[in-house]
Amino acid sequence: TPLTEALFNPSSLAIVGASDDPTKYGAWLAARALRGTIPVHLVNAARSTVLGHPTVPTVSAVGGQVDLAVIAVRADRFEEAVDDALVSGVRALVGITAGLGELGGGRLAHQAEVVERIRRSGGRLLGPNCLGVLDHSTGLDASVNDFPHGSIALISQSGNVAIDVGIRLAEAGLGLSRFASLGNQADIGLVELIDSCVDHDQTQAIAVYCEGFIDGRAFVRSAIRAAQAGKPVVLLTVGRSAGSRRAAASHTGALTSPEAVVQAACQAAGAQLAASPAQMVDLLQGLLRIRPPAGRRVAVISDGGGHGALASDALAARGFEVVPFGTELRAQVAGMLPPHATSANPIDLAGAGERDLDVFARLSDLLGRSPEVDAVVLTGALGGYHVYGPELGAHEVHVAREIVAIVAGSGSSYAAHLIFPQSPAAQVLQAGGIAVFRDVDAAAWVLDRLTRPDASCPDDLSEARLPQAPVSGGDYWSARTFLESAGIPFPKAARVTTAAELARASEQLDPPWALKALLDSHKSDRGGVVLGLAGPEPLQAAWQRLRATLGPPSFSIEQMADTEHAVELIVGVRRDSTFDVVVLVGLGGLQTEVLRDTALALGPVDVPTAMRMIEGLRGAAILGGFRGRPAVDVAAAARIVSTLSWLLAAHPEIREIECNPVLVLPEGAIAVDARMALA
Amino acid sequence: TPLTEALFNPSSLAIVGASDDPTKYGAWLAARALRGTIPVHLVNAARSTVLGHPTVPTVSAVGGQVDLAVIAVRADRFEEAVDDALVSGVRALVGITAGLGELGGGRLAHQAEVVERIRRSGGRLLGPNCLGVLDHSTGLDASVNDFPHGSIALISQSGNVAIDVGIRLAEAGLGLSRFASLGNQADIGLVELIDSCVDHDQTQAIAVYCEGFIDGRAFVRSAIRAAQAGKPVVLLTVGRSAGSRRAAASHTGALTSPEAVVQAACQAAGAQLAASPAQMVDLLQGLLRIRPPAGRRVAVISDGGGHGALASDALAARGFEVVPFGTELRAQVAGMLPPHATSANPIDLAGAGERDLDVFARLSDLLGRSPEVDAVVLTGALGGYHVYGPELGAHEVHVAREIVAIVAGSGSSYAAHLIFPQSPAAQVLQAGGIAVFRDVDAAAWVLDRLTRPDASCPDDLSEARLPQAPVSGGDYWSARTFLESAGIPFPKAARVTTAAELARASEQLDPPWALKALLDSHKSDRGGVVLGLAGPEPLQAAWQRLRATLGPPSFSIEQMADTEHAVELIVGVRRDSTFDVVVLVGLGGLQTEVLRDTALALGPVDVPTAMRMIEGLRGAAILGGFRGRPAVDVAAAARIVSTLSWLLAAHPEIREIECNPVLVLPEGAIAVDARMALA
Repeated sequence: TPLTEALFNPSSLAIVGASDDPTKYGAWLAARALRGTIPVHLVNAARSTVLGHPTVPTVSAVGGQVDLAVIAVRADRFEEAVDDALVSGVRALVGITAGLGELGGGRLAHQAEVVERIRRSGGRLLGPNCLGVLDHSTGLDASVNDFPHGSIALISQSGNVAIDVGIRLAEAGLGLSRFASLGNQADIGLVELIDSCVDHDQTQAIAVYCEGFIDGRAFVRSAIRAAQAGKPVVLLTVGRSAGSRRAAASHTGALTSPEAVVQAACQAAGAQLAASPAQMVDLLQGLLRIRPPAGRRVAVISDGGGHGALASDALAARGFEVVPFGTELRAQVAGMLPPHATSANPIDLAGAGERDLDVFARLSDLLGRSPEVDAVVLTGALGGYHVYGPELGAHEVHVAREIVAIVAGSGSSYAAHLIFPQSPAAQVLQAGGIAVFRDVDAAAWVLDRLTRPDASCPDDLSEARLPQAPVSGGDYWSARTFLESAGIPFPKAARVTTAAELARASEQLDPPWALKALLDSHKSDRGGVVLGLAGPEPLQAAWQRLRATLGPPSFSIEQMADTEHAVELIVGVRRDSTFDVVVLVGLGGLQTEVLRDTALALGPVDVPTAMRMIEGLRGAAILGGFRGRPAVDVAAAARIVSTLSWLLAAHPEIREIECNPVLVLPEGAIAVDARMALA
Repeated sequence: TPLTEALFNPSSLAIVGASDDPTKYGAWLAARALRGTIPVHLVNAARSTVLGHPTVPTVSAVGGQVDLAVIAVRADRFEEAVDDALVSGVRALVGITAGLGELGGGRLAHQAEVVERIRRSGGRLLGPNCLGVLDHSTGLDASVNDFPHGSIALISQSGNVAIDVGIRLAEAGLGLSRFASLGNQADIGLVELIDSCVDHDQTQAIAVYCEGFIDGRAFVRSAIRAAQAGKPVVLLTVGRSAGSRRAAASHTGALTSPEAVVQAACQAAGAQLAASPAQMVDLLQGLLRIRPPAGRRVAVISDGGGHGALASDALAARGFEVVPFGTELRAQVAGMLPPHATSANPIDLAGAGERDLDVFARLSDLLGRSPEVDAVVLTGALGGYHVYGPELGAHEVHVAREIVAIVAGSGSSYAAHLIFPQSPAAQVLQAGGIAVFRDVDAAAWVLDRLTRPDASCPDDLSEARLPQAPVSGGDYWSARTFLESAGIPFPKAARVTTAAELARASEQLDPPWALKALLDSHKSDRGGVVLGLAGPEPLQAAWQRLRATLGPPSFSIEQMADTEHAVELIVGVRRDSTFDVVVLVGLGGLQTEVLRDTALALGPVDVPTAMRMIEGLRGAAILGGFRGRPAVDVAAAARIVSTLSWLLAAHPEIREIECNPVLVLPEGAIAVDARMALA
């Protein structure tokens, strides 16, 4: 696109606010841009030279075409600099300048006006309040820090986080194809940059640090396109602490933290969510260098019992099994090992690696090809033998080259954990496309992440948005009536106002009954629900008592479900301000509120997805028949989850629906309470 | 002690098996020992020189006193080398040689014989199958790798893990006072080495990597002594994966994994448990450099919004609060900041740090002294400003020195997370005793670890070991009778064999009754328990049915507790083969078996410790009155836990006692089932 060309591949660029002052961005930008291959114009009205290079007073004074202007002037001069660039035909502007929209108020309005003017002139703005742009495939460097060359596009809302990620990528032998600093996203946003990187041949993965999603669903769609193009997205974001402080108006509200919603969005998008720059780089290594294991059986090759045991523990903690080898494989392994080594899994060379370094390669070959093994983890001191002399050092580099060839040949799922991760042998492995981790737990964590199920993309919201009669009341009876008409099963019930209506209704419904005072909310917390009324007398007594204490306008009398073998779930759907419909399901009652055993997904969800959510709960075993109890009807519960999610998608006037509890029975599932909140 | 002197401070040492072959330990040991300050004799019968130095054919040929012999010969020559050393008066032997006891069988017996001979001659053996010994305070280096100098004693069962830890310590600006490789622990063991390091003036903390504890209680006592001497122990161990495979004979057995028992032991000992070399070094940094925070209120100083938000998230995830500042403090902060920075917590210099680097020091001073703040976390790019030029580089080193002085002066709880952790400024911080982490999550994790409660040392087992009449039967009725006599409350019950006895007993006990077939185990799984028998007729029916289906020799008829407001716990005590009495308490039934919400401690435990265990359960909120239910009597449950733990301590013939469930009632607690296993 023209934007992409101007921003990442300009024929020339201008640094507006170029400076000699070594504490200013204008100096750092100018120095780096001058080292690049793209013609640079330094713009400074007050000085005839900067860093020994001649300047121009304005962009207009350049005379020729300037595609890209990087503006690093003070906030009060930003507008003037933008206007100068626009009249000169600049198509892409990068606003380094801070002190604009991020301060809110009048400055936000001013920023919006400037963007409006840029767009009218056919230009586009990255930032302001950003740290520049870089494209190693075109030679553009309009940033302020060193970033290693590679195949990852990094899009970041924070300059320092980008630096952090860049340092770690370099250590892993990885680097950037492009870097774009998001800044205030006043014009060009995250989604547009992801889209442009999906189309960038030199980009193989996209790393995003983002603090706020302007349109969460657009991000999800964009990440799905990236995943489909084989360019996985790794997302690092923040907001966990803010979420923990949010006051909760409902259980569903309390349980859908911003963090959990972003997790659900990443799951839907097939994107990987990182919690730190370290995790981001670990994931990128995994995605670019490790073939996802087809199962959970891992072989560990260690040159010492300690690292073998630590690796086994780390793998077991992530749900992998360091499997016992079959007799034949074990004999083959033993045949390769020195006398005192252990041929069981984890293989332990017993500190005898130095006697025959080639054994690392032979074992990698044997195990990588074995049908008994889904992944191979090499752990320990390979890369550190050079400290014992140059012969061993040369030999271990040779072994590293062999391993590279073996893994490339077999296509096995292979990860290395080396205590000397910067050694020559480690660098050979990395350059050959082998993932090298410094913490074996990181290797195990990444292997697990690579085995997660693929994106479960929710059905398109637009499908659900057929015209529907809007809902107008959110009270229990309205919610119940609305949901029942949409196919959610409830116990038989009647709304009654007088004693005569109560008596008539009780004849239509089988005891035991529940009597509910129709109050606004939290019926049970206020004592407005009486259960297990077995005959007319206790029913009358409960009626009298609730009238006297709570005086509700009316009551619901309900036929009680047989709860003997029921398992309680909470099912909630909620409209998130950024990601729209989110769907929550959890083990109900005490389990949800105290132990928070819940699953969240972007909605709407189909029944199979809802089943997977339920079956993935920590306590899901209680649904399958526990200690002789009958298994309950998870599919019926999943139908309720799916139905609620489609209802919310179809009704923009509803903010939240919660059925808590849903009783899942040996046959069927039934909602026995409902709350609904309108937007 | 003489051992300590000979092992760590020998007047001279011999390297037996010194070699020129660069792939052999004998060469690596010799080369390093020759660089040390302690006189070295190279022993090699086949060569007159090694590494250009003259050799002796045997230790006896040395002529003078040799305190320490490091033996790196082949396994079949080990005994001969030991004998030679012993006749020469060597007092401490270090066995590098592998291929002995670790292979088991006859070689284990042979190793034991050699040790026996060494002890008879007044000598002691470290190893065999170890990687040597080192004492930087005496100049001894009989190891095979570089280890940085410092104040930590490292005792390791794995050489490669020691190397791993050493590299990480060096990066943190920490190092070793001593290193001892445990090897097979054929003679000198972990506990003796810890004890010797407690008495070592140059040691300030003790790091242990250990795969197997020979006497777990002795380790605990030793670690307690270390903690009392102000020399905290950090333990790295393995076995999590083995534990997960163990077949479980009981819930208590299934829930007391080796990992959980070691955790309980560390808690009892006031030791810190690490799961990886990285965590070990993080903990050592925390223990040596961070004053434990007095509360959970943290101030974050960041030079970019991204790292401030990431730090807040990481701290919130560990239970800290990045507190809002009071009006006055916020004004003071604002007064120090550049125009666009954020004076709220986390403080965000908004990428303007370079304009006034001194602000890092001023804020550190202000916040470190503020009574609103329990800990200060500095996060971000300090240490990285040197990339923008030498002026900023010099300035940030100056600022680092100021921070060192400020933290030393105020004694505040302070941690730094730097994305350039090896920079000159970072090194100044480390040298000045400031903890510097590369991952902010590690900083938050360590701060949390430092705020854990102190050691809760169990009462001495020997106190409990008064002579007691041994228990002989482990069946339900025997267990119930025994436990009831020891003060554990049970519902009233009678053992009956005939219908007449049943009828008589039912008159003595209030309905509803429970009827239990007295089978060996798992009564309820086999349908041998019928609950809620409200009168003689259902009682008779249950009796007939159980007789027909299970035909037990006898029955227990029991008065049922009122379970309406009861919370179920599982309480179990178990004799661990390494750590003796361990105590388990968990939320009962489904919660324990599916969600594994349990706490474990070394026993016996007193009632306050048992209360803390119960109150620390994830689902403890349900004990305190949940949704209008009455609170239950946790103290009564804690008395049961404590009593069981003392019973197991007093009865070595019992292996395990489990009361599951214990019903905790609004007043009192009562065990309604019991299992007991004898040794």
